Amino acid sequence: MVEQVFAPKSQYRQIADLLRERIETGFYLPDDPLPSEPELASELGVSRVTVNKAISLLRTAGLVRVRRGSGTYVRSTPRITRDARYRYANPRAAELEGRALGLSPRAECTEVSKVEASTEVAVALGIDAGDPVVVRHRRLFADDEPTRLADAYLPWDIAEDSGLLEPDGAELLESDVGSGAVYAYLAERGHGPARFDEDVTVRVASDAEARALDLEDGQPVIHITHVARDADDRPVEVALHVMPAHLWRLHYDWSALRDDEYGAENDD
Amino acid sequence: MVEQVFAPKSQYRQIADLLRERIETGFYLPDDPLPSEPELASELGVSRVTVNKAISLLRTAGLVRVRRGSGTYVRSTPRITRDARYRYANPRAAELEGRALGLSPRAECTEVSKVEASTEVAVALGIDAGDPVVVRHRRLFADDEPTRLADAYLPWDIAEDSGLLEPDGAELLESDVGSGAVYAYLAERGHGPARFDEDVTVRVASDAEARALDLEDGQPVIHITHVARDADDRPVEVALHVMPAHLWRLHYDWSALRDDEYGAENDD
Repeated sequence: MVEQVFAPKSQYRQIADLLRERIETGFYLPDDPLPSEPELASELGVSRVTVNKAISLLRTAGLVRVRRGSGTYVRSTPRITRDARYRYANPRAAELEGRALGLSPRAECTEVSKVEASTEVAVALGIDAGDPVVVRHRRLFADDEPTRLADAYLPWDIAEDSGLLEPDGAELLESDVGSGAVYAYLAERGHGPARFDEDVTVRVASDAEARALDLEDGQPVIHITHVARDADDRPVEVALHVMPAHLWRLHYDWSALRDDEYGAENDD
Repeated sequence: MVEQVFAPKSQYRQIADLLRERIETGFYLPDDPLPSEPELASELGVSRVTVNKAISLLRTAGLVRVRRGSGTYVRSTPRITRDARYRYANPRAAELEGRALGLSPRAECTEVSKVEASTEVAVALGIDAGDPVVVRHRRLFADDEPTRLADAYLPWDIAEDSGLLEPDGAELLESDVGSGAVYAYLAERGHGPARFDEDVTVRVASDAEARALDLEDGQPVIHITHVARDADDRPVEVALHVMPAHLWRLHYDWSALRDDEYGAENDD
C-alpha cells in the first residue's frame, strides 16, 4: 500500500505482516493451530521474543486466538457485512447478515426497562438528561461467537403511545433480532423512521465489553451511534452498537448530488 | 454500557478504564504528561506492572503517546468528523474537515504514475488484473500529524480521455487536497460520479503504514474502500483510505424507504 521506505523497520511487525499474509492466503487454515513459537523462530531465523510480540499483534488484530494449555489457533469466523441502508429497510436484514455466511444468529435480550436518559442519550434523542426512556440491552451472537452489544433507547412517550410497553409490544421488543420489526411496529403507529444518522468510531473495549464480547487484550471495537428520526424529524430511537472490529465490514452507499446541484455547490 | 457482571474482572483493564475516564473528562489535559508509573501505582494501590499494562492499552487506543526519555503524554489532536455525503458533494469538504477544528490540512502527493491494476483494484474497477490504471499516492496531515494515506486509482482510458494526464490535469491530480476538484473535472468531461459505495473495515496497521502514520504498536487503522461510479454505473475511481482509528469519526446519513416501499419489503 505504502511505497515509501520508512527506515528502520520493526522486525516483529514485519514477522506479523508475514504471518498475516499466510493466514489471509490460506497457508494456515481457519481453526488450525499455528506452529509453536520455537518452530516459527527457527523457521524464520528470529528470536522467540520477536515471534511472541508478532503473535501478540495478531491477537489484537483478531486473526488468532490463544486457547490456554493448547496453543494459538487461526480464528474462523469470517467478516460479516453490515449493509446500512438494506439493514434498516428490511425487518429481517439483521438476521440475514450472519446467515449469508452460514452462521446461526441468536439474540440474548438481557434487559428491557425504564431508566433515566444519560446525557449522551438525551442529546441524541433531543430530550433532557434524566427524562425517562425505555432501554433494551441485547447481546447478539453468530453461532457461539458474540458479535455485537446493542443498547436501544426510545423516548418514554413514544414507547407508551405506540403500545410498546403492553404485552404484545414488550414481547416484540424482547424477541426481535434486529430493529426491523420494532421499526415496522412504530411505522404502523405513525412514528416510522424516515431518516437515519450513524456516527462510527473505533476504540478499545472497556473491561466489561471485552468480557461480554470475548475479546483479547487491546482488541478494538467499532462503536456505532445510530439515530432514527420520524417524518417530523423527531428522534424515535437511539441505538448504541458495540462490535468486535475484526468481525465486521460496514457497507454504505449513496447517490451523488446531480450535476446541476454539484455545479451549484462549486460556485459557493 | 454493559450492565451484566462478567467476573473475574481484569485489574489492569479497570485501571485503563479509570485513566481513560480521567483523560475524557479533562482531569488530565491534552499535551500534559501523565503522572509517572510509580506515582500512579502508589496513588491507585496497584503494582507498577499493572500500571504499565494499563498504559500500554491507552497507547493502543491512541489516547497517550510516549516521548522517549521524557514520559507519557495525553494526545491532543481531536477526532475529525468525516461526513461521507457532504465530503463528496463539495470539492473543498475534505480540506474543511480539519479546519473545523482549527487544524491546518496539508497533502503530500508522493506519486502519480501508470501501474498495472492489482486484483483488488481490478475487481473494484470492473477491469482485468494487470490492466493499466493511473494511481495517485498521497499522505494527508492535520497540522503536523499524519491523518490519512489515500491511494486513488482511475482506469487508464478515463484518465486519458478526460485529459487528466495532460499538464493541467496532472497538476490538478497533484494539488487537490481531497477528491472534489478531480470529481468536478471528471464531471465536466462526462464521467462525473453519480453513485458512491464505501466498505469500512478495521485492522492493525502494517509495518509500513505504522511508520507512515506515526502509530504505536498494535494501533488499529480504519480502511475505507471508496468506489465512485458515473451515470452509466461504470466505476471511474477506486480510492483506498487508511486512517489512524483514534483520529476519526465517520458520519453517514440517509433517507429510509418511504412507508409504502417499506410495507412492500415487509411482504416479501
